[in-house]
Amino acid sequence: MSHDEAPPTERAELAPETASRIRASIARQTLLTTLGVSVERLAPGYVELGLASRADLSQQHGFVHAGAITAIADSACGYAAYTGFPEDRDVLTVDFSMSLVAPAAHPEFVAAGRVIRSGRTLTICRGEVYGIAEDGERQLVALIQATMMAVTRMSGNA
Amino acid sequence: MSHDEAPPTERAELAPETASRIRASIARQTLLTTLGVSVERLAPGYVELGLASRADLSQQHGFVHAGAITAIADSACGYAAYTGFPEDRDVLTVDFSMSLVAPAAHPEFVAAGRVIRSGRTLTICRGEVYGIAEDGERQLVALIQATMMAVTRMSGNA
Amino acid sequence: MSHDEAPPTERAELAPETASRIRASIARQTLLTTLGVSVERLAPGYVELGLASRADLSQQHGFVHAGAITAIADSACGYAAYTGFPEDRDVLTVDFSMSLVAPAAHPEFVAAGRVIRSGRTLTICRGEVYGIAEDGERQLVALIQATMMAVTRMSGNA
Amino acid sequence: MSHDEAPPTERAELAPETASRIRASIARQTLLTTLGVSVERLAPGYVELGLASRADLSQQHGFVHAGAITAIADSACGYAAYTGFPEDRDVLTVDFSMSLVAPAAHPEFVAAGRVIRSGRTLTICRGEVYGIAEDGERQLVALIQATMMAVTRMSGNA
Repeated sequence: MSHDEAPPTERAELAPETASRIRASIARQTLLTTLGVSVERLAPGYVELGLASRADLSQQHGFVHAGAITAIADSACGYAAYTGFPEDRDVLTVDFSMSLVAPAAHPEFVAAGRVIRSGRTLTICRGEVYGIAEDGERQLVALIQATMMAVTRMSGNA
Repeated sequence: MSHDEAPPTERAELAPETASRIRASIARQTLLTTLGVSVERLAPGYVELGLASRADLSQQHGFVHAGAITAIADSACGYAAYTGFPEDRDVLTVDFSMSLVAPAAHPEFVAAGRVIRSGRTLTICRGEVYGIAEDGERQLVALIQATMMAVTRMSGNA
Repeated sequence: MSHDEAPPTERAELAPETASRIRASIARQTLLTTLGVSVERLAPGYVELGLASRADLSQQHGFVHAGAITAIADSACGYAAYTGFPEDRDVLTVDFSMSLVAPAAHPEFVAAGRVIRSGRTLTICRGEVYGIAEDGERQLVALIQATMMAVTRMSGNA
Repeated sequence: MSHDEAPPTERAELAPETASRIRASIARQTLLTTLGVSVERLAPGYVELGLASRADLSQQHGFVHAGAITAIADSACGYAAYTGFPEDRDVLTVDFSMSLVAPAAHPEFVAAGRVIRSGRTLTICRGEVYGIAEDGERQLVALIQATMMAVTRMSGNA
């Protein structure tokens, strides 16, 4: 459909230390573990997270709940911002807007977050969540526009 | 602080059938059960949902994850809208904006959602999430502004 | 209707120097002059701006255009934030969400903006725009939720 | 930078009657005339509007006011949605989120709005506003994510 919905085709590789730091930070986010979130792609300014539909993550019609869809959308944007931060900084979500454009009725989901503009303090991101059908076809289910902030890293964790 | 943050003092009672329908709908939202969400108050155009901090719901610093905070904020607004719908309608979130104003570092949370204006198709809501300290003091942690849609109820569920 | 829609009844007075600084800053915003915006109230963390309907400010049905409604909503929030800033700081809008809940078909409008939470860098505000009928009755026409940033004041202006 | 920022390269032509209807509707939006807004491109699901910086459209630092930037962003999205509506429908903005990512310090601006997903009642759009330097270089200044509604056309106008 739109050029928004296509994943980037060419991206530089992320420095291995940055990738490790992000994977360690994601591992500490116990909600993401509870939801079964997987890391699908880490690139400079771009992160993809995966989520599988599960009986204990649904809303009242059996689709995946907007709270879970939001969790991966927000986290993909937050880590996309984080890829550009110096090592002593951590990321905090200031605010975001979600549009839920189709029911999350798919077996798998992927949330793509990318940096649109990064300043010293604030980084603006956009992201999309796609439902993936059994034949691999992607359908857009949600849009996010988010403002992230770089904060001094809290000691002992990221 | 602001008049936004005070819960309503006087509200009419919700019809028992409507309250039952909402409790049944919430019970079908398995993500809310997974997160441990409780119904704290149901009134016409106003709903409060509770959430307790838990080791498996955290972000990277041990605070409750924004995804869980969003799930209760969105759901409180959705059910607040739903209290005013005819019996054959169901509620769908169109979009929402979340502002995360303080770390969700409290043992308990309550999300209040209320109807600001309801039209035939769309209902506009606002809500707040408060962290509740051990001494019972409330602190605002998040704001939501949401657009909800009334849709024809899907057969067999709500 | 909701407790959101009532204007505050008791507010401390704003320091006269701060009020002067805000009036001078508003006077430099030539778009506000072009639109005919008036200052209705300045209090700590709370600002009201007025706008009169005019033939050259309409959308396609003759109602006041959402762009003009947004201009007063955003400015009321920005100056509400500004009332709490030190003298050497200026205010910048980071982002906002507007919900347009009723047609702006009234002869007069007032936008109320107020601070919900102020941090060192960011201040979160909410606001409402009301249409005022000829008999003085107010009707809610728009909601705003906004993130403002304190920045070092640019020399020679505010 | 991002694939969001590139204008579409290939788009079908808009039916001449639809283009006429949109131009007539824009002409009735007197605020757009007051601001000096121009139609730069009309294509199915995609609209570009232009704005020139002017001394009477500024905020307190002489940059173009966010209210004017919002007016073209919202209108570009609204008309992008409108290109897909049947003849008897009109477009209404339900809500939108704006992120202001850089000062609007340029001599010219263009707002691009495009449809992301269109349903029977609601159409979700995204848009960007670019500042255009004297050498023609474009810089992103604002992002919008908007929800539009198709309503029955009001008699006698569009």
